[in-house]
Amino acid sequence: MPAAASSTPGKVWLVGAGPGAADLLTLRAARLLAQADIVLHDALVHPDVLALAPQAIHVPVGKRGGRPSTTQRFINKRLVDAAHRHARVVRLKGGDPMLFGRAQEEIDALRDAGIEVEVVPGISAVFGASADALQSLTQRGLSRSVILLTPRFGEGESRHDWARPAAAADTIVLYMAGRSAEPIREGLLAAGLPPGLPAIVVENASLPGERIQAGRLGDLPAMTRALGDGPALLMLGAVYEALAGRRADGEAVAA
Amino acid sequence: MPAAASSTPGKVWLVGAGPGAADLLTLRAARLLAQADIVLHDALVHPDVLALAPQAIHVPVGKRGGRPSTTQRFINKRLVDAAHRHARVVRLKGGDPMLFGRAQEEIDALRDAGIEVEVVPGISAVFGASADALQSLTQRGLSRSVILLTPRFGEGESRHDWARPAAAADTIVLYMAGRSAEPIREGLLAAGLPPGLPAIVVENASLPGERIQAGRLGDLPAMTRALGDGPALLMLGAVYEALAGRRADGEAVAA
Repeated sequence: MPAAASSTPGKVWLVGAGPGAADLLTLRAARLLAQADIVLHDALVHPDVLALAPQAIHVPVGKRGGRPSTTQRFINKRLVDAAHRHARVVRLKGGDPMLFGRAQEEIDALRDAGIEVEVVPGISAVFGASADALQSLTQRGLSRSVILLTPRFGEGESRHDWARPAAAADTIVLYMAGRSAEPIREGLLAAGLPPGLPAIVVENASLPGERIQAGRLGDLPAMTRALGDGPALLMLGAVYEALAGRRADGEAVAA
Repeated sequence: MPAAASSTPGKVWLVGAGPGAADLLTLRAARLLAQADIVLHDALVHPDVLALAPQAIHVPVGKRGGRPSTTQRFINKRLVDAAHRHARVVRLKGGDPMLFGRAQEEIDALRDAGIEVEVVPGISAVFGASADALQSLTQRGLSRSVILLTPRFGEGESRHDWARPAAAADTIVLYMAGRSAEPIREGLLAAGLPPGLPAIVVENASLPGERIQAGRLGDLPAMTRALGDGPALLMLGAVYEALAGRRADGEAVAA
């Protein structure tokens, strides 16, 4: 664990931890974890992934329950501090760092502090989920576009501003949305999508506790009612017709 | 290279080869390649990736120059045949198999033939490109949605049907579009996007010959004029303002 001289800060790698399963990290990520002096990781990163960095200091920096903006500034500061005390700092982020990960704030804070930063991509949850569901996101004649988004519900007429771009794409993937199935159904119906639009809900993508349910847009609230604490994706589009047709009652198609 | 008995077909893994660099494969993909009897791979998969399967038979099944639909049926048939002759068959596909990869046709053909199939996700080019550009696809206050698509240009009024969903998202990523910059500019402008919208063009994401150019929607044709044979992504949205502002002339920001 060589400490960097205070005048020469270390380097920080923002590394994608993938969807959950430890063997879905990249070879590069595994090598960097094995060489890291310190690993600052999201709360959701699986213990099997952290085990790839047995000799490093492990620091959870998850935002669960904290005030988001204050806590992000605190994470940024901890990263800068870590680079002043260690040569090889890994910031391990769930999925891919560049998608819904607040990575830009961390990158900008590090560069502003004169610290070298590099990003290592990871498998985002949607690709782990699609692999396990054996259902491609795009398909000839059915889908040429995929939108990935996190809905934010506004006030009044702008309440469902998120739904118009979602409804325009062939395949819709909603991250961090397991608790919002009711307003999501409302928004997508208001944007003109039919209640019979095929949908799947994937919880704990790539992990042993993975659960894939199939159904229809109109059933989304029922499909998410039994979700646990794990991260869940809602995925909608014509490509899910075969899965929805097989289990139109929202029964699990894989567990 | 144990051959499966003709009555008991082998298993096929559809494996994502990632954006190019061999160490951006997942640990699982590397293990499966090391154990494979035969690897049927896209034309674009890098030789360094194929080197991870030194003892397997290597069969290129790229579609370059062929008639696409005929050739896809031929690929499906070769996969089924391979599973009848080998225990462990890897179908290695660029990026992630479930995004723009015609994976569903291969999965369905294999399942129809009674052959077990499993999918291993990979890093899609957009994540390799975003990592190297040090620019997140989403960003607080700027982008909450990302659309990934391949434009197909129709006739008459439907010529730019692809552009409406694209223009509705905060960040737009166009795959396999390096040769279509002129109609893409035309379509996105017709869909209401401003010519000053920041854009980057990324060629050979993650590879030594990677080139990242920044500019504006109005400059897209000029930005793509010097592209080589490598795969290129066009990425547009407010998140690229910092990159475009630094090099508004389309000059390379990284090479």
